Amino acid sequence: MITSGGTTMELAYVPRHTPYTLAPEDELNDLRMSEKVRPLYDHVKKFIAETVEPMSHEFEAAGEGNPNRWSFTDKQLEILGKAKNKAKDVGLWNFFLPDAETGEGLNNLDYAYIAAELGKAPLASEVMNCSAPDTGNMEVLERVGTAAQKEKWLKPLLNGEIRSAYVMTEPNVASSDAKNVSTSAKLDGDEWVINGEKYYISGLGDPRCKIMIVMVKTDPTAAPSKQQSQILVPVDTPGVEVIGPMHVFGHDHAPRGHMHMRFNNVRVPKENILLGEGRGFEISQLRLGPGRIHHCMRTIGKAEKALDMMVVRGLTRVAFGQKIAHLGGNMQIIAQARCEIEAMRLMVLKAAKAMDVLGNKEARVWVSMVKAMVPERACKIIDQAIQMHGATGISQWTPLAEMYTDVRHLRFADGPDEVHWMVVGRHELTL
Amino acid sequence: MITSGGTTMELAYVPRHTPYTLAPEDELNDLRMSEKVRPLYDHVKKFIAETVEPMSHEFEAAGEGNPNRWSFTDKQLEILGKAKNKAKDVGLWNFFLPDAETGEGLNNLDYAYIAAELGKAPLASEVMNCSAPDTGNMEVLERVGTAAQKEKWLKPLLNGEIRSAYVMTEPNVASSDAKNVSTSAKLDGDEWVINGEKYYISGLGDPRCKIMIVMVKTDPTAAPSKQQSQILVPVDTPGVEVIGPMHVFGHDHAPRGHMHMRFNNVRVPKENILLGEGRGFEISQLRLGPGRIHHCMRTIGKAEKALDMMVVRGLTRVAFGQKIAHLGGNMQIIAQARCEIEAMRLMVLKAAKAMDVLGNKEARVWVSMVKAMVPERACKIIDQAIQMHGATGISQWTPLAEMYTDVRHLRFADGPDEVHWMVVGRHELTL
Amino acid sequence: MITSGGTTMELAYVPRHTPYTLAPEDELNDLRMSEKVRPLYDHVKKFIAETVEPMSHEFEAAGEGNPNRWSFTDKQLEILGKAKNKAKDVGLWNFFLPDAETGEGLNNLDYAYIAAELGKAPLASEVMNCSAPDTGNMEVLERVGTAAQKEKWLKPLLNGEIRSAYVMTEPNVASSDAKNVSTSAKLDGDEWVINGEKYYISGLGDPRCKIMIVMVKTDPTAAPSKQQSQILVPVDTPGVEVIGPMHVFGHDHAPRGHMHMRFNNVRVPKENILLGEGRGFEISQLRLGPGRIHHCMRTIGKAEKALDMMVVRGLTRVAFGQKIAHLGGNMQIIAQARCEIEAMRLMVLKAAKAMDVLGNKEARVWVSMVKAMVPERACKIIDQAIQMHGATGISQWTPLAEMYTDVRHLRFADGPDEVHWMVVGRHELTL
Amino acid sequence: MITSGGTTMELAYVPRHTPYTLAPEDELNDLRMSEKVRPLYDHVKKFIAETVEPMSHEFEAAGEGNPNRWSFTDKQLEILGKAKNKAKDVGLWNFFLPDAETGEGLNNLDYAYIAAELGKAPLASEVMNCSAPDTGNMEVLERVGTAAQKEKWLKPLLNGEIRSAYVMTEPNVASSDAKNVSTSAKLDGDEWVINGEKYYISGLGDPRCKIMIVMVKTDPTAAPSKQQSQILVPVDTPGVEVIGPMHVFGHDHAPRGHMHMRFNNVRVPKENILLGEGRGFEISQLRLGPGRIHHCMRTIGKAEKALDMMVVRGLTRVAFGQKIAHLGGNMQIIAQARCEIEAMRLMVLKAAKAMDVLGNKEARVWVSMVKAMVPERACKIIDQAIQMHGATGISQWTPLAEMYTDVRHLRFADGPDEVHWMVVGRHELTL
Repeated sequence: MITSGGTTMELAYVPRHTPYTLAPEDELNDLRMSEKVRPLYDHVKKFIAETVEPMSHEFEAAGEGNPNRWSFTDKQLEILGKAKNKAKDVGLWNFFLPDAETGEGLNNLDYAYIAAELGKAPLASEVMNCSAPDTGNMEVLERVGTAAQKEKWLKPLLNGEIRSAYVMTEPNVASSDAKNVSTSAKLDGDEWVINGEKYYISGLGDPRCKIMIVMVKTDPTAAPSKQQSQILVPVDTPGVEVIGPMHVFGHDHAPRGHMHMRFNNVRVPKENILLGEGRGFEISQLRLGPGRIHHCMRTIGKAEKALDMMVVRGLTRVAFGQKIAHLGGNMQIIAQARCEIEAMRLMVLKAAKAMDVLGNKEARVWVSMVKAMVPERACKIIDQAIQMHGATGISQWTPLAEMYTDVRHLRFADGPDEVHWMVVGRHELTL
Repeated sequence: MITSGGTTMELAYVPRHTPYTLAPEDELNDLRMSEKVRPLYDHVKKFIAETVEPMSHEFEAAGEGNPNRWSFTDKQLEILGKAKNKAKDVGLWNFFLPDAETGEGLNNLDYAYIAAELGKAPLASEVMNCSAPDTGNMEVLERVGTAAQKEKWLKPLLNGEIRSAYVMTEPNVASSDAKNVSTSAKLDGDEWVINGEKYYISGLGDPRCKIMIVMVKTDPTAAPSKQQSQILVPVDTPGVEVIGPMHVFGHDHAPRGHMHMRFNNVRVPKENILLGEGRGFEISQLRLGPGRIHHCMRTIGKAEKALDMMVVRGLTRVAFGQKIAHLGGNMQIIAQARCEIEAMRLMVLKAAKAMDVLGNKEARVWVSMVKAMVPERACKIIDQAIQMHGATGISQWTPLAEMYTDVRHLRFADGPDEVHWMVVGRHELTL
Repeated sequence: MITSGGTTMELAYVPRHTPYTLAPEDELNDLRMSEKVRPLYDHVKKFIAETVEPMSHEFEAAGEGNPNRWSFTDKQLEILGKAKNKAKDVGLWNFFLPDAETGEGLNNLDYAYIAAELGKAPLASEVMNCSAPDTGNMEVLERVGTAAQKEKWLKPLLNGEIRSAYVMTEPNVASSDAKNVSTSAKLDGDEWVINGEKYYISGLGDPRCKIMIVMVKTDPTAAPSKQQSQILVPVDTPGVEVIGPMHVFGHDHAPRGHMHMRFNNVRVPKENILLGEGRGFEISQLRLGPGRIHHCMRTIGKAEKALDMMVVRGLTRVAFGQKIAHLGGNMQIIAQARCEIEAMRLMVLKAAKAMDVLGNKEARVWVSMVKAMVPERACKIIDQAIQMHGATGISQWTPLAEMYTDVRHLRFADGPDEVHWMVVGRHELTL
Repeated sequence: MITSGGTTMELAYVPRHTPYTLAPEDELNDLRMSEKVRPLYDHVKKFIAETVEPMSHEFEAAGEGNPNRWSFTDKQLEILGKAKNKAKDVGLWNFFLPDAETGEGLNNLDYAYIAAELGKAPLASEVMNCSAPDTGNMEVLERVGTAAQKEKWLKPLLNGEIRSAYVMTEPNVASSDAKNVSTSAKLDGDEWVINGEKYYISGLGDPRCKIMIVMVKTDPTAAPSKQQSQILVPVDTPGVEVIGPMHVFGHDHAPRGHMHMRFNNVRVPKENILLGEGRGFEISQLRLGPGRIHHCMRTIGKAEKALDMMVVRGLTRVAFGQKIAHLGGNMQIIAQARCEIEAMRLMVLKAAKAMDVLGNKEARVWVSMVKAMVPERACKIIDQAIQMHGATGISQWTPLAEMYTDVRHLRFADGPDEVHWMVVGRHELTL
């Protein structure tokens, strides 16, 4: 009955056309910094080495013994102010705004290279007025703010006089699904009345933080993507209650903090809404820009540092008669970390380039890929560095434990990995 | 030229005989608690529920506002003392010592079941005088101590009047390779003179900690396994310098702490040596017993709790129109966590049984397997629970972040995973 | 505004009561073979060594040069017949049936130990009439067959005179979701008329295969779990078309094969239905028993063999001046393989015990755990053994490549891993 | 005694300077194809679509029923010959040679893009005379061959009249460590006398294969890197014994095959040595070029195809009421596959660019990274595609099973992953 041992049918396979297999000449494959930005890049590196790094030590010393953990000392503010003035003087100020009148017109790829340098010194971003969440907030205000809003809030932010917060995440719902936002804003006469609870509001503990951009639900009956709005709320508005700091693996990150807060019948003028009612989603797209690329480049910097530390440890520590770099699978762990870092770096540069070439909307799949890929793999590399350091790896003697908790945190900040993979997966299914 | 498409040779394969493929009737496969211990087990569970849990809350409340973080308040000590007396009264005291005259004669398997219960309430072990490192120290003193050593140190430890430390790990060498121990003890007349640096000495911050067992190198010229000795050193001996607490992911774990310390020409009488010069290794073997099984069972308890929390979160949180337990790969993550937990539990019970049946030496491969397997997998499960909780998972609102850092720490405490895998691998190669 | 750096709320956590945290005395924790079965077990081992292994070589030799790959030679059938008769004579026949009148009354745990031995010699199961899918088919017939069905089909199966097939999987639907079964059986007068396509029907290529149990849809309008039925169909019924063998990574596994087939208006008498219309699901539960445990134990045997081969290779092959067992991460790979194998073994024994103590229905979560866990991990171990053998590992000189493809196949046979994890996950969510 | 809860010391950390953190303007970051090659690239794509794909079906059909599996039919050779002539006519011939007089002067990056296209049609490489191992052999001959060697062997290879083999791997030693090569060549008068055993010699089964480049040991007493030589051996030299085909997961890959062979006192003229005695290593470096990049690009093509098939399957198959792409973790699997593929592609392009810019020697770390990274990850993606197809995934109805075994094979071809990681790790330790 069986006549052949061979194939009886073959499933038809028609390759899909995918936009990923680019024409080789495509400019998306050119990941070099643009010529004109190189002097700025060199300047930033020099400024960090010569100005930011020395002042960072002074700044830290000036904060020691401060009885109020949720403040900076006068001395600290003075040191910081001086450095910021110097940055303004030499023209290293506000260059983060991509293609903006007020900024340097850096595109995302160029900024990615600079962000990698900014990430190496903790205070560099702040001194050059490029630190989150101010960058995203300024970008939003610059793009969609009214003249009055710009005058009142963008100007002092651009001047580095105040700081700001972005108020999105809620403790009681999965706010990565924006439909879930439950903080409400209802129009009452000429005022929005806001009620709700938010948490992990980074930087809201900082006494200089004066203004918040708040994601609220203005119309629960609208289409899902039209229910949300973003509203400007000054921090000192009555009814704004900062309950306390949320911890990150036990740290409160004073004095900046990631705060838990409540809006208790908070009233702001009608015109504080950004862009218009129901356009909260739309505004969110604008924030995608430099922020995520910046985070990813900084995270790669941390992975690089962890690898560096593995190597140094591996070559100086001896057990069972061998340098531990040569023990067991350690050399392979080191090699794979190098390979992951290079792959991550290329992917982030490509995502930045995609934003420049295709625009934020079309590039969102690339951004989601790196947002989901980079923190998870960096966590793994840092964890391996910890293991190679033994108990010292989780102690205060190395930066590894803090690096780990910071990067671990990024796996849900701005949407958990799972949501980003969903973005990528859904797109793949439509090709 | 080619005459056949078939096999041209076959590599000889002779199965090795391995002790792992037991006769099915072997008692190693009977993982039940012994009949006679069941009443004790029930009693412990009842005592924890009725006495330990209520007093734990009182104890914590009594410590609030204590200006000296490195102390207990009088009220705390009173509460603890009362509970300990009650434990003594009802006979739940010192039952950890396996097969000992002074203990309950519990074997390791029986103790494993009880340890799982002790692990559920933070103070349970201390109230019943079963907490590390006192258990290991008492076990060592009971087995190898002289009458005078027992009188002076074992007795108050058995009475729960003082606490103790085990001083082994050094910051400057890979002390998982015991040959590396660099703290020296040199005989000068009738005294040992000790010099060296140690760190991560758990419990040494506790003001009640009075005695240390210290691993030292007494003869660098002896055979590698005869160079070390263990010596009793009272905490208040001149030259003992406690430098400060080592952190675990930023926590100092006051008031018990994991301390960094130095021996500066510390002098103790010649007779403080345990068992004899050059027998430090031998003593280490004695400590293997209940300690590791206890740690593993507690860690499995944490993994179980993390799984529990995933389930509760998964069923109460909604995103994209679904309970998150039903989103993406979450159900599979939950299922695999259950499977890992059950596999770990069986392995730990088998390791305990192996210690009972085969003795510590023969069972060391089983102990190394669970020591390497359990913390790593539990870390992964806790990490997944964190991810399913979003930012709340790393906040102070859930125990997950602290559970993670505790269990992560176990991946190098008592030897890093890699050393334990080496023990298992080497043994496998000799079968 | 911020008054405390401490906790502001704590999420309530109430531990769920789970049946997994057994009372320690529970008999589920006793994984020893029962006393009474030990003589049988010893007898099976002896019979395999003394009878099955020698006859296996003769059997293979007697098949060489057979021009019809889809048949056995007369000589082969004679050799096999002689061995089967010997097995009958010494009482090693049909002992697979758990708690059955016609079998040895072995429980699942006892059978698991024996299955591990059966798995070591390819022909052992067949010689003792314990080979799949006959075992499951005989079990079903014994439990739910009518007297006539038993006389006609169970009797020759129990005698080892014929073989059988279980016809379930369909190429055109995801048949792991039984609702999808699309092969239809419609009553026409006194006959069922069957139409549809099936594939991967193991053993149907064997010329001795005479009877099939076929999963069909009898009532698409019934409740989802009542739509299916199982029907006896003799292989020689007109309209039964065996199209050809399905390959497993390029092999056709002649002469037994995994066949692709079609039912073209196949007519069988009304009374060929098993148990009754709409009870197809119910019957499936009966098959769970020894089959999966047997598969898992055999798979663990393969993992054990792969580990064995890694060790032998690792100790005899030299590169870069070292035995490769000592190179890089190889020792850790070996150690982790040992640990996984022991964990798998304990889990399978526990699943078998759970079936004995709790019944198939309650134990299904344990069975799904091991069904999903064992093939995936065994695949990984075999793959690592391949890697340690270099190209020889995928050649015809070692059994590794074939072991890999066999075990890889198990990851969807009897339901893909994902479905089993779903069973476990769903159950976990209901605890 | 404890005066501070804070930091007591900090380990000095001095960042290493690594060449990986390139200046952003570095040309290594420009991964675009060069302008001048674009017409060739377009031509190749067109030729594959219009000529190679149609002739491939004819070629396959013309081979059916060939009784000698280790040959091509006359019809096949005619079809192939015609296509090759056409390729020559239109100038698509021998363009693989990087920067060579006889080739198109393609650099590695340009060739990588073309290789990706060649990889899509099985016969494309051969038709354009760009197939392994001829490419590497021609490259070697072109660089180091004497005029006579070029005339005799390079010329017919460049003309596509004969084929060749590269004879390196040995069954009895770990030949990834070249010091282990045991096939010996001893000078006897004016002839080399070769003895030894080799296996997995790809293409040696092809009746058109006429010449071999053989790695031998000429001086076991020389420095480790000077012991080896490479010698030209015509296939028809007396004493060359082709024993039979080695299998790859059960396939013999007739008629090309991966052959097992022996040199039995094979004698070739003294001048058949390449470059000179003891320079075997040196020659190996020359082969690195296009071969590995080609392999990697082809493998990425397979991963892309597997992802494509997952998507199609996921959108057309329904289980439990949903398309399986939306079931469980499948969407995340799809998303991660996309991310891995893009990361691999960028890494391979970068490795190709590194070879162009830095030279083969300096670029070897990049080449090792992609050689170790790409096959392992592609295997995983193909395996996931298999799982999503159920049993169909390992059947002859999809190309997945064959793709898996091919790519799995690459994990040791040209050195196992572990050796490549060692290259990367060692380099990292020297930075």
